[in-house]
Amino acid sequence: MTRSPILRRGLLAGAIIAAPALFPVAGHADEGMWTFDAFPTAQMRQAYGWAPDQAWLDRVRAAAVRLTGGCSASFVSNAGLILTNHHCVAPCLQDLSTSGNDLMSKGFRPASRTEERKCPGQQAEVVTAISDVTGPVKTAIGARTGAELVKARDAQIAAIEKAGCPDTARTRCQVVMLYGGAQYKLYTYRKYSDVRIAWAPEDRAATFGGDPDNFNFPRYSLDASFLRAYEDGKPVSPPAWLKWDPRPPRAGEVTFVVGNPGSTARLYTTAQRAFDREVRLPVTITTLSELRGRLLTAMAQTPERNREGQEELNSVENSLKVYIGRLKSLEDPVFWKRLDDADAALKAKVAGNPAIGDPWSQVATAMTAYRELYLPARSIRPAGDLYDWARTLVRAAAERTKPNSERLPGYTDSALPLTEKTVLDPKPVTPWLDRLELEWSLSKAREYLGADDADTKLLLGKESPEALAARLVSGTKLGDPAVRKALWEGGEKAIAASNDPMIVFARHLDARDRELTKELNARVNGPLTVAAGKLADARFAAYGPSVYPDATFTLRISIGKIEGWVERGKPVPPFTTLGGTFTRATGFEPFDLPPAFAANQARINKAVVYDFVTTNDIIGGNSGSPVIDRAGTVIGAAFDGNIHSLGGNYGYEADVNRTVVVASASVDEALRSIYPSPALARELAGRP
Amino acid sequence: MTRSPILRRGLLAGAIIAAPALFPVAGHADEGMWTFDAFPTAQMRQAYGWAPDQAWLDRVRAAAVRLTGGCSASFVSNAGLILTNHHCVAPCLQDLSTSGNDLMSKGFRPASRTEERKCPGQQAEVVTAISDVTGPVKTAIGARTGAELVKARDAQIAAIEKAGCPDTARTRCQVVMLYGGAQYKLYTYRKYSDVRIAWAPEDRAATFGGDPDNFNFPRYSLDASFLRAYEDGKPVSPPAWLKWDPRPPRAGEVTFVVGNPGSTARLYTTAQRAFDREVRLPVTITTLSELRGRLLTAMAQTPERNREGQEELNSVENSLKVYIGRLKSLEDPVFWKRLDDADAALKAKVAGNPAIGDPWSQVATAMTAYRELYLPARSIRPAGDLYDWARTLVRAAAERTKPNSERLPGYTDSALPLTEKTVLDPKPVTPWLDRLELEWSLSKAREYLGADDADTKLLLGKESPEALAARLVSGTKLGDPAVRKALWEGGEKAIAASNDPMIVFARHLDARDRELTKELNARVNGPLTVAAGKLADARFAAYGPSVYPDATFTLRISIGKIEGWVERGKPVPPFTTLGGTFTRATGFEPFDLPPAFAANQARINKAVVYDFVTTNDIIGGNSGSPVIDRAGTVIGAAFDGNIHSLGGNYGYEADVNRTVVVASASVDEALRSIYPSPALARELAGRP
Repeated sequence: MTRSPILRRGLLAGAIIAAPALFPVAGHADEGMWTFDAFPTAQMRQAYGWAPDQAWLDRVRAAAVRLTGGCSASFVSNAGLILTNHHCVAPCLQDLSTSGNDLMSKGFRPASRTEERKCPGQQAEVVTAISDVTGPVKTAIGARTGAELVKARDAQIAAIEKAGCPDTARTRCQVVMLYGGAQYKLYTYRKYSDVRIAWAPEDRAATFGGDPDNFNFPRYSLDASFLRAYEDGKPVSPPAWLKWDPRPPRAGEVTFVVGNPGSTARLYTTAQRAFDREVRLPVTITTLSELRGRLLTAMAQTPERNREGQEELNSVENSLKVYIGRLKSLEDPVFWKRLDDADAALKAKVAGNPAIGDPWSQVATAMTAYRELYLPARSIRPAGDLYDWARTLVRAAAERTKPNSERLPGYTDSALPLTEKTVLDPKPVTPWLDRLELEWSLSKAREYLGADDADTKLLLGKESPEALAARLVSGTKLGDPAVRKALWEGGEKAIAASNDPMIVFARHLDARDRELTKELNARVNGPLTVAAGKLADARFAAYGPSVYPDATFTLRISIGKIEGWVERGKPVPPFTTLGGTFTRATGFEPFDLPPAFAANQARINKAVVYDFVTTNDIIGGNSGSPVIDRAGTVIGAAFDGNIHSLGGNYGYEADVNRTVVVASASVDEALRSIYPSPALARELAGRP
Repeated sequence: MTRSPILRRGLLAGAIIAAPALFPVAGHADEGMWTFDAFPTAQMRQAYGWAPDQAWLDRVRAAAVRLTGGCSASFVSNAGLILTNHHCVAPCLQDLSTSGNDLMSKGFRPASRTEERKCPGQQAEVVTAISDVTGPVKTAIGARTGAELVKARDAQIAAIEKAGCPDTARTRCQVVMLYGGAQYKLYTYRKYSDVRIAWAPEDRAATFGGDPDNFNFPRYSLDASFLRAYEDGKPVSPPAWLKWDPRPPRAGEVTFVVGNPGSTARLYTTAQRAFDREVRLPVTITTLSELRGRLLTAMAQTPERNREGQEELNSVENSLKVYIGRLKSLEDPVFWKRLDDADAALKAKVAGNPAIGDPWSQVATAMTAYRELYLPARSIRPAGDLYDWARTLVRAAAERTKPNSERLPGYTDSALPLTEKTVLDPKPVTPWLDRLELEWSLSKAREYLGADDADTKLLLGKESPEALAARLVSGTKLGDPAVRKALWEGGEKAIAASNDPMIVFARHLDARDRELTKELNARVNGPLTVAAGKLADARFAAYGPSVYPDATFTLRISIGKIEGWVERGKPVPPFTTLGGTFTRATGFEPFDLPPAFAANQARINKAVVYDFVTTNDIIGGNSGSPVIDRAGTVIGAAFDGNIHSLGGNYGYEADVNRTVVVASASVDEALRSIYPSPALARELAGRP
């Protein structure tokens, strides 16, 4: 699944650091995740003999939706209907399920709109304007470096965002750093903070083949669902929506994927890739594999635990497959050499240019510092919803007393509404799961830092990870939304007075957590921002302006076509059909037929195209992106990449990297024959 | 723990391949795991001003014991008493435990010798002769290559071993390949197949600090135990034993470690190290981490499961720490370059020598083949005692019908008695644990080979790993030693007639298992043997004859001294004391005091040296090795390396690589004040 591998529940939060994006040059016509204000019209005309005009681009952009849960989507009706992937609504289905009513396994088909249900924490956003604010941000930075650079930059960003969106109820402003800091763009969004689940198939229909088939093709997956945006209790009528076309997709036809790729590292310097290969990925894969094992066994204990842990396990397994694929790509000597050679070629082209200097050495120095700071930064933020809430409550109380310009990112006036929604929306807590993840993360902190490390001692005191996690999870009341609300509204005083053990723990870690952020800014993020500017200059000087920035979970468009690939000498056809599901089914999980497929087998038109692959260049975060044809109509929703797409974080391999799409055709057939939903089918057809 | 990271229960058995040993040159006086027939007397004299004479070496060699479970040991009394590590007897303690009588947690102190209990599967072996058989083996090989080479070699080895040891009840012959095939030596052992547990402390005393402190120092571990060899129901009087000296060890004094290091890869070519870094270690670490998570959660379910899984978890965590440390060492650019440079230097020295040719390319070609075969070979042998028994029974039945020269290794006349003992010794089965490991290994096979792979389909048919593992483990009767005995004795007819699902499964996999072995021999092991011969020639030509062979789980002696090291600028002293345990204890697992320590706190002499470190060069398999002073007396038992020793698989780093030893002094104090065992103390003191 191409959802962002940044996990919910703060699992890896300590490990996230702003990716210093560099300047990819598109090496192939289909490579590139382009911003809408720099669509490569000439390049596309050359390759495809045609390119969309500005009106086409404007209309598509206005219908594209970003889901704050980490996915992409699109409006597909004039009544706020949103097409996305099933795996993008799975956290919502999980949160709305109970032991007696499992929306994951059964799916969700409300009899009428009034039964559509709100998804906790979810928000839909549509870009309405993009403007360049590079000048004011760079002026604010001036000659500053290190932590001072980051502070001045973030203060200016907070001011620009606040000034741009006085209506924080309906709009959101976000300054996006492109090319690692060479450009800053203000994205203005129309936001919809009441998003409800409108339709979901059975989980098994979406995840048929489970983890074994994830990131593989041929595929038989109905990874599609519908949400609906509401405002003032009514479905919204969005300014634009895409026409839904359930026609069969055609081999070779042009396809656009419009969505929000989360992050890429296409032109990391060798020092940055070496860090991923030697430190970040091995640690992440090893620890997540253990978590996977813990989850699998815990879930096998009872059917109820199996239900409660399902979405978390899917998320962990998906992330793990992404990271394993990335490491494998970096451990491939041919792939590594290709990227290394490109880095060396750029360096050679600008050698001796005094305006560029040696940003490669600056990056290497920053990455040496990051090797020191990585494990502490990762460890200081234990996993789980409960700790995440506690940390946010503690931080929000302190940050809100400061002027807007001095707050941490996430707590500025422009960012606070979404942060608040994330903490206060009612959402069930699964204590055994929170405890399992807290225990796991504390135990891994001790393992990687060492039992005698000062941060280990700060985290554990004399307790064991097992005892501490049990004490905190059994003692906290933060699972109650009213308790969180009282602490949010009570601010610093309420936080200081709280005896809730999870709040006490978050207070206890806060100073060191902030100190590590500061040190990362001083020694890693600040220097990388400066170096990225120079590397951008180098790249523009060497290759001209036709380059796309690394992904930043903001709106991009990618160009491609429907096409299979050749795997070990054998062609992989670009389509599967609904009927193929019955052939592939074994009767054993995860290859067991979804019950509705079995029940409706005779009615299903087995010739309908189910899933297909395209050459579009996408990555995690693109999940749910509409796949749009030349006419601007939706012929599917992107939900995955093939196995070769996993190295796509570092480089696009045109001959084998593929996007996997669920066809509008099969979703339409599902709405008719498998999960009959006539009202929805009519709405999509534009009929009243 | 420096036991061999080759796990019990066949966990990684498919991954084992004969390491093509090369020709290390000792770069430092303390580097080297020397064979007894090539002790570096001159080198030691130069570094230490003294070296032991032949009588000293002969006496020490005659008292050194190999434990077939994968450890080392020594005779320390004239009544067959054997000193080894607690973690070397832990599988025995686990097998002899019941829910009402947990010998792991309580330890084992029999009131008299008659209460000593036999350890399933364990055998003690003492080298009595070493002779060179390189000539006959090489003659048998002739000009053969690939699978034919391996076949001819193994046939000749089987013949030599059979001729050398007609008394298979009391002797065992084993031809050992040194330097990857440049030399073949016949080791003749006096064997003792009735080995009983004589004394063990509480598990917590041995594993104080648990996994966090494993491979670390300062250390507070009583990782010592005693076995006793029996014959005809009576304790044996061995031809030689070492004097036990509980005196305090002295900083700087010379120490010898005599034991059986399992395997090293000190002078792999770069292609071989790259395979470890890029393929073997990432796959092994990732999958073992998941197993660790599965075990941890399964064990936390009930105290009984916690007891039943303890030794397996310890083994998995120990192996994992070894592999993570190895990968980290290979991912260290400085360490990698040092080894790479050494490889390049040798290549340069012999460039153009027609007698050498280009073995580096031959190795690279073999490793490319191994990259193809590694995952299938690993996957074709699912994990667990039950499957291991089934596989051995199926193979033994077929192999025993063949002439000795045509059998697979492990089934020749010289090897059969130990194979038979391993299968037939009564040993409890823990069905949930076998099922967990079988399910895990089948699930990882599917993950790494892919759901559509032919081997995956052979393994699973249409079943899921979960369903298949449950069916096999619940249906098999192989847990009953009598059933195994009947199948062993019934031979091919009984195997063919068996409906036991585990036997049926092993029969089903057997042809492909053999085919993969053959292909490995043809494309990997055969070519590596030829190349290793050439690399050996190259190394001798470049550096002369003073080199030690890579480890082969045969008897070696290493030279060193008691010395700490400097860690991040701070000196680490070489000793800890018994009293330090009380300071380090937190009250929480795994830093909780062993009950007997708490109960006897007032009596314990806290100034006694507990553990210490030396510069000796050891590796997994050396666990339990006697640490011997200049006088030839035992001053401790090696039980671990420090964290820097983990890269020692590839290269010895003299400044930081240390052996961790439990002092005879602290064992003696334990026998007096903590676990009073006056008879044993008297026996060790040589008093009646």
